[in-house]
Amino acid sequence: MQQRIPDATIRRLPAYLRWLSTCNLERVTSGILGQATGFSSEQIRKDLAYFGAFGTRGVGYDVKALRQEILRILQLDRGVRAVVVGAGHLGTALVRYVGQSRQRDLEIVAVVDNDSDIIGTTIGHVSVEPIEKLEQLVEEYDIGMAVLTLPASAAVEIAERLANAGVHAFLNFAPVPVCTKRFDVFVQQIDLTLEMQALSYFVQARQPHPIP
Amino acid sequence: MQQRIPDATIRRLPAYLRWLSTCNLERVTSGILGQATGFSSEQIRKDLAYFGAFGTRGVGYDVKALRQEILRILQLDRGVRAVVVGAGHLGTALVRYVGQSRQRDLEIVAVVDNDSDIIGTTIGHVSVEPIEKLEQLVEEYDIGMAVLTLPASAAVEIAERLANAGVHAFLNFAPVPVCTKRFDVFVQQIDLTLEMQALSYFVQARQPHPIP
Repeated sequence: MQQRIPDATIRRLPAYLRWLSTCNLERVTSGILGQATGFSSEQIRKDLAYFGAFGTRGVGYDVKALRQEILRILQLDRGVRAVVVGAGHLGTALVRYVGQSRQRDLEIVAVVDNDSDIIGTTIGHVSVEPIEKLEQLVEEYDIGMAVLTLPASAAVEIAERLANAGVHAFLNFAPVPVCTKRFDVFVQQIDLTLEMQALSYFVQARQPHPIP
Repeated sequence: MQQRIPDATIRRLPAYLRWLSTCNLERVTSGILGQATGFSSEQIRKDLAYFGAFGTRGVGYDVKALRQEILRILQLDRGVRAVVVGAGHLGTALVRYVGQSRQRDLEIVAVVDNDSDIIGTTIGHVSVEPIEKLEQLVEEYDIGMAVLTLPASAAVEIAERLANAGVHAFLNFAPVPVCTKRFDVFVQQIDLTLEMQALSYFVQARQPHPIP
């Protein structure tokens, strides 16, 4: 049996994964990974040791192997099926984006919306279904993840419905926190405005004069 | 004069900001913020002390005040103007999203594309301009940030053009790392597929049986 990996470690893995997926290096030390992700190199060495990834002193870790191992720990090798709620511009972009990336481990199998004008149309190979069929689709396709691209007013109710139907992982783009009373649900909030705000330091820091 | 804040601290601030913006608490301890963001509570206390935010033992920090202070440190109070490159579904969603959030500190002032069918149309109050006008728009509107929603093949070249025109902060949705040789450019990569992959642990961990 594999040692149980602490939740705190699991929560740091996506940050490592993000950086490993975009860096151009063949090997990386815990020091570099630390500088890039903001965690201490001791923390990183401890985290990676949990799943048997041991760096070589002065040489570091093999980037490709480490990335594969993190994907395995995140259990992507079992395959994930997702529903996108909201077939507006963002929902449409997501379905195409994931479709184009040809992830065999991650599939968007359904899209739902409440606009009768777009129900029945298709995005890529996925047809837009009425939102009333949400629970039925979750069961039919064994859906484990939902991506919410909804107005804030509807997001919380829909998330509750999905959680009751057995969906435990959410990616929420609605500009409202989706909190549920359930402890077995994990919500990753992505606020695109906030992502831009967080970058503003790097705009201004290099400008000799502030915008008047 | 304010003490200079280390770059490593600046890079952790967005993570704090994200969580503070979505939590429902009035006050937060460094321990809770640490659990939520993956950083140690010592690290958090040290970071926040740099800009004069001191928690009260056992009571913690005022969430609203801390959030405001981080936004100030990120220099959002000076205002940021951004261009969106690519007026497809994702670009369109972003312009609407930021427009609706009515951030007075963050404004998308231009959208460019190379598709003659959509050049001249408007998204919200922003008209789609030809990509040839990129440098001209950067100068005209004093643009400091670019959001790239482009095919991978075009992203690197456009980023280089923008950097040469004086844009130093990028939010890149293209599924390719945008690396420039310039050290004064900061690129935040957002890979939406990766965001979904990173969630998969939370799908599977709760399912009694793996997907066959």
